[in-house]
Amino acid sequence: MLKVGIIGAGRIGKVHLESISYHVKNAVVTAMADPFMNDETRAFIEGFGVEKIYQDYKQIINDPEIDAVLVCSSTDTHAPISIEAINAGKHVFCEKPLANTVDKIQEIADALKAHPEVKFQVGFNRRFDHNFAAVRKAYDEGKIGDAQILKITSRDPQAPPVGYCAASIFLDMTIHDFDMACFLTNSDVEELYVYADALINPSIREYGDFDTAIISLKMANGALAVIDNSRQAMYGYDQRAELFGSKGMVATSNDTLSSAVISTADGVTGEKPLFFFLERYMESFSEEVRQFVAAVENNTETPVGIHAGMQSVKIALAAEKSANEHRAVKLSEID
Amino acid sequence: MLKVGIIGAGRIGKVHLESISYHVKNAVVTAMADPFMNDETRAFIEGFGVEKIYQDYKQIINDPEIDAVLVCSSTDTHAPISIEAINAGKHVFCEKPLANTVDKIQEIADALKAHPEVKFQVGFNRRFDHNFAAVRKAYDEGKIGDAQILKITSRDPQAPPVGYCAASIFLDMTIHDFDMACFLTNSDVEELYVYADALINPSIREYGDFDTAIISLKMANGALAVIDNSRQAMYGYDQRAELFGSKGMVATSNDTLSSAVISTADGVTGEKPLFFFLERYMESFSEEVRQFVAAVENNTETPVGIHAGMQSVKIALAAEKSANEHRAVKLSEID
Amino acid sequence: MLKVGIIGAGRIGKVHLESISYHVKNAVVTAMADPFMNDETRAFIEGFGVEKIYQDYKQIINDPEIDAVLVCSSTDTHAPISIEAINAGKHVFCEKPLANTVDKIQEIADALKAHPEVKFQVGFNRRFDHNFAAVRKAYDEGKIGDAQILKITSRDPQAPPVGYCAASIFLDMTIHDFDMACFLTNSDVEELYVYADALINPSIREYGDFDTAIISLKMANGALAVIDNSRQAMYGYDQRAELFGSKGMVATSNDTLSSAVISTADGVTGEKPLFFFLERYMESFSEEVRQFVAAVENNTETPVGIHAGMQSVKIALAAEKSANEHRAVKLSEID
Amino acid sequence: MLKVGIIGAGRIGKVHLESISYHVKNAVVTAMADPFMNDETRAFIEGFGVEKIYQDYKQIINDPEIDAVLVCSSTDTHAPISIEAINAGKHVFCEKPLANTVDKIQEIADALKAHPEVKFQVGFNRRFDHNFAAVRKAYDEGKIGDAQILKITSRDPQAPPVGYCAASIFLDMTIHDFDMACFLTNSDVEELYVYADALINPSIREYGDFDTAIISLKMANGALAVIDNSRQAMYGYDQRAELFGSKGMVATSNDTLSSAVISTADGVTGEKPLFFFLERYMESFSEEVRQFVAAVENNTETPVGIHAGMQSVKIALAAEKSANEHRAVKLSEID
Repeated sequence: MLKVGIIGAGRIGKVHLESISYHVKNAVVTAMADPFMNDETRAFIEGFGVEKIYQDYKQIINDPEIDAVLVCSSTDTHAPISIEAINAGKHVFCEKPLANTVDKIQEIADALKAHPEVKFQVGFNRRFDHNFAAVRKAYDEGKIGDAQILKITSRDPQAPPVGYCAASIFLDMTIHDFDMACFLTNSDVEELYVYADALINPSIREYGDFDTAIISLKMANGALAVIDNSRQAMYGYDQRAELFGSKGMVATSNDTLSSAVISTADGVTGEKPLFFFLERYMESFSEEVRQFVAAVENNTETPVGIHAGMQSVKIALAAEKSANEHRAVKLSEID
Repeated sequence: MLKVGIIGAGRIGKVHLESISYHVKNAVVTAMADPFMNDETRAFIEGFGVEKIYQDYKQIINDPEIDAVLVCSSTDTHAPISIEAINAGKHVFCEKPLANTVDKIQEIADALKAHPEVKFQVGFNRRFDHNFAAVRKAYDEGKIGDAQILKITSRDPQAPPVGYCAASIFLDMTIHDFDMACFLTNSDVEELYVYADALINPSIREYGDFDTAIISLKMANGALAVIDNSRQAMYGYDQRAELFGSKGMVATSNDTLSSAVISTADGVTGEKPLFFFLERYMESFSEEVRQFVAAVENNTETPVGIHAGMQSVKIALAAEKSANEHRAVKLSEID
Repeated sequence: MLKVGIIGAGRIGKVHLESISYHVKNAVVTAMADPFMNDETRAFIEGFGVEKIYQDYKQIINDPEIDAVLVCSSTDTHAPISIEAINAGKHVFCEKPLANTVDKIQEIADALKAHPEVKFQVGFNRRFDHNFAAVRKAYDEGKIGDAQILKITSRDPQAPPVGYCAASIFLDMTIHDFDMACFLTNSDVEELYVYADALINPSIREYGDFDTAIISLKMANGALAVIDNSRQAMYGYDQRAELFGSKGMVATSNDTLSSAVISTADGVTGEKPLFFFLERYMESFSEEVRQFVAAVENNTETPVGIHAGMQSVKIALAAEKSANEHRAVKLSEID
Repeated sequence: MLKVGIIGAGRIGKVHLESISYHVKNAVVTAMADPFMNDETRAFIEGFGVEKIYQDYKQIINDPEIDAVLVCSSTDTHAPISIEAINAGKHVFCEKPLANTVDKIQEIADALKAHPEVKFQVGFNRRFDHNFAAVRKAYDEGKIGDAQILKITSRDPQAPPVGYCAASIFLDMTIHDFDMACFLTNSDVEELYVYADALINPSIREYGDFDTAIISLKMANGALAVIDNSRQAMYGYDQRAELFGSKGMVATSNDTLSSAVISTADGVTGEKPLFFFLERYMESFSEEVRQFVAAVENNTETPVGIHAGMQSVKIALAAEKSANEHRAVKLSEID
């Protein structure tokens, strides 16, 4: 039974607490920490039988009974907390993005090199989603041949408040799609070109950010890829992928609450996609932790290591550069 | 070049005129007759280059230049005109139903026996529809194994005026579905049981008729089948079939004007089915005549002979009997 | 926190144990009993923290700490155990069918009448399935108008061994569909007619049973309905419903493991339906118990009471009678 | 009755001959010319009742009885023949692309300016396809709000022989998609960026051409667009579009020969897309000419004028430039 401490009791921290409690058989959450711990959150955590509830995450890192740490704190603390945990010999599962700079991620990589016994996983949960996993499986099984064209559509149901995001759309939202591009083609990215604009809310441009983007990518294995992003799809969370290759294509559509289709004089109408990431990807949050726990137990490689964490951030930084400089940017330019 | 005379210049007669002119390469309509021929109809017919336009159909039957006759007159005249044409040595394509009684159809059969050189085809156009033909093809190719369950959904977009139909729903509308049941399972019907009611317009009951029905059938080859009918589907003409067997299932859905699907805050909406039989089955009207012409040219059997014409009417009469007597009726009871 | 005892530790008993432990917040399983309790089952139950594990179910019924009982034992014991539990003042959730005779179910009804404080629910889990619930919701919201035609397709992926079932296909398998027919049209059944045969394995006829059936029903509210059953669909568990009414239609399709569709030179291929009822309906097993617990907590009516339990068995018995006597059978004939 | 002469009796010339004969009521083909006229082609043309069959197209241009000319000759002759016809006062329908250079198209534009009475239409038939027209219709009706993201997938079922094409993939194949991008967003293109490669057959690179491409476009109205092309989709001709806007999305899927879906132990399999452009777009070839004829008859603007013909070629030339220079290219750079 793996003893887990969760650092950060915001939305994603709570999701992991509930998910591990109900759906991860070989792990138990024994401690949880958050600098802004309040009574409501404390009660929520206690409801799952967690006894050690802290404000200071260091109490988790220093707890010799804890085997593994889930880093669910704010992005800027991902790297330092991960490093502390690694140095304390804890296995680490860290939410994405690992950091907003290459240097900070490199520091995590260095810490891991110094602690080869530590398992490290990045929280790219979509890799464990039933639909995206089916795309990769079809590719791995050779059903579509060599990858030639990948298309990812990723649109949020509603935009965050203007100025809310510290990070750009690329680091905050597209980062998942960048990881998907690598995962689905089983390849790194070599170069990209971005068209981005503020078509939903022009005032976002004042913050140097965008709400609509088309990102073309040249993958290291030769495949071409394109991601289209919008911060606001009125019909809901649109999450699709299609991979085209020398033998055929595999494509996914959106999940819905039910398959009911209503035919009337007005048309033939099915349900909108599941609302947002908690509804759409809930099962994947369990599966990623199950596989993390299995990697610890079996002393095998975790399914999403530091390389994926680094790649995705480099791609996001390259995308920012391309959008701002109106030119193709090679990943090798990013350091 | 087969020279064709069309008897009856109502809707279906005009459909065949246009369809043969544009889409049947080895046939030409040289004559057309209708007792109610008016100027408008005459002009329409002339527009297709037809020179011989009559009120009296006998002028077509007596025309030695004419090879084949399409009987598109009112149902009660189908049998006598067909018999006259057969006796005159014309090949005959007759619209459905051949008649409303077994006796009259038997007279056609007798005439055909006396004129074995004459080709005879019944106008069950749905056999030539791309979707239904694909169901039968899958069955013939063994893809679904032995037929076990057939389901046909057949719903009209709007009911005819009450009292309009001389014939019952079974002879007027379901007759096509009865023929489909035989065609899709490649079998005759042995017995059936009907639940029928007037759920759309109760006043239809005064005419001894129904507007909604579920007809269960036991096919001669052992398969079970069910047809559901409605005179009024608010979303349009609903024409589907599914055949289930020992190896799998083949199922069809409705055709639409386009594949466009619109996703908005209100849902994900596709188009309604094509409006009615002219829109839905237009291509099949050409194909049935093409195959009739080919049978004449090649001196082969037509694809829909007198047996199909007789079976479908017997089934319809058995269905009337079952609905009225509230019991299962065997086809062998109908004479 | 409702304290629950589960009687019967077979497959469905274990499903409820796991489901309640993980997904039903206000209930806890404190006891479980099975006459054939073995070490493996005992270990499984202990894994969920259940302390009271018995061979004799009476220990559960006599336990004053237990609020509610889930009757998951063999069908012939459903009624007597339910009655004992009711008489002991326990709330009862009983698996379907309640019994194979009307008399036994009437005894449960009588016990309930004598204990009006007891909540009683029948395990018709499909009512809580997302797809079927969406059909009923559309109907309740008036989107399809008055119900006119209901179609239910229910096909198992593989037949049980011949002679395995004590009960007929109607009491064992179709019973769920009979309840669905009532649920989806919000009506009782008035009369039915059955065509049934042994098309998959003719030797089933020796046991007086069938493996393929088409059941036509006349609902008390005037709607017509049809259920088609097969014990063996080679493509998997086929569970669909469509309800047609005066304003339109609502229809559901099967659930799959993913939405991935693979297009190759061989065609455009999606996944088969989820394998069987545990995969397909797992979520509904939680939801039905959640609503049972809520009814106890709020002292409201349970969503599936004794009437539904009685109706479904009466319909199944009428279906047996119709199949054997080749005639329409009214529900009023069954006592 | 518009009298039409067709110049060029290759595949597309024959398609127009047949299509006009069968499906365009107010036009008749009275003459056809081809420098390589042979007996087989002559017999084909005569079969449609065309009496004037020439080797020299000038006989058509000089024929005072002919009202309109369809230019279906090889691409390099489109411009000079169109100009001759315009100068002779004939209405002109010219196949795409108008030419491979801006200068030549400008010459056509100049001729048209000198002959304002002449109607001129470019053969962008896809604008008249039922699916693409439905996308534009939904947009025009305001159902999706302001256009933000357009995605076009356009993949051929099989690549032409290497070295066969005189023109690049952009001028030969993508030209249709460029016109679709303008049509569907109702906007010109401002700038584009291309990733292109030879992933199917690397030897195409020796001819300076590509077989796989992702083209990102910035439309003049602010929308972003992306086209993905492949010369070889093993599952057939893949022709889809989706337009996303401030209120929602409209998307189309491929057409198939039938809607039949076969479910077996191997999966749930539907048909592949219709094979290639003749199968897929046949109806659009009639519709574009019907609208050309109507424009002549009613003296209104044709639906696809010289501007669309010029734009599409400019975009194709910009795409070539971008692919070769690895940079974003503005349309304003192309002259």
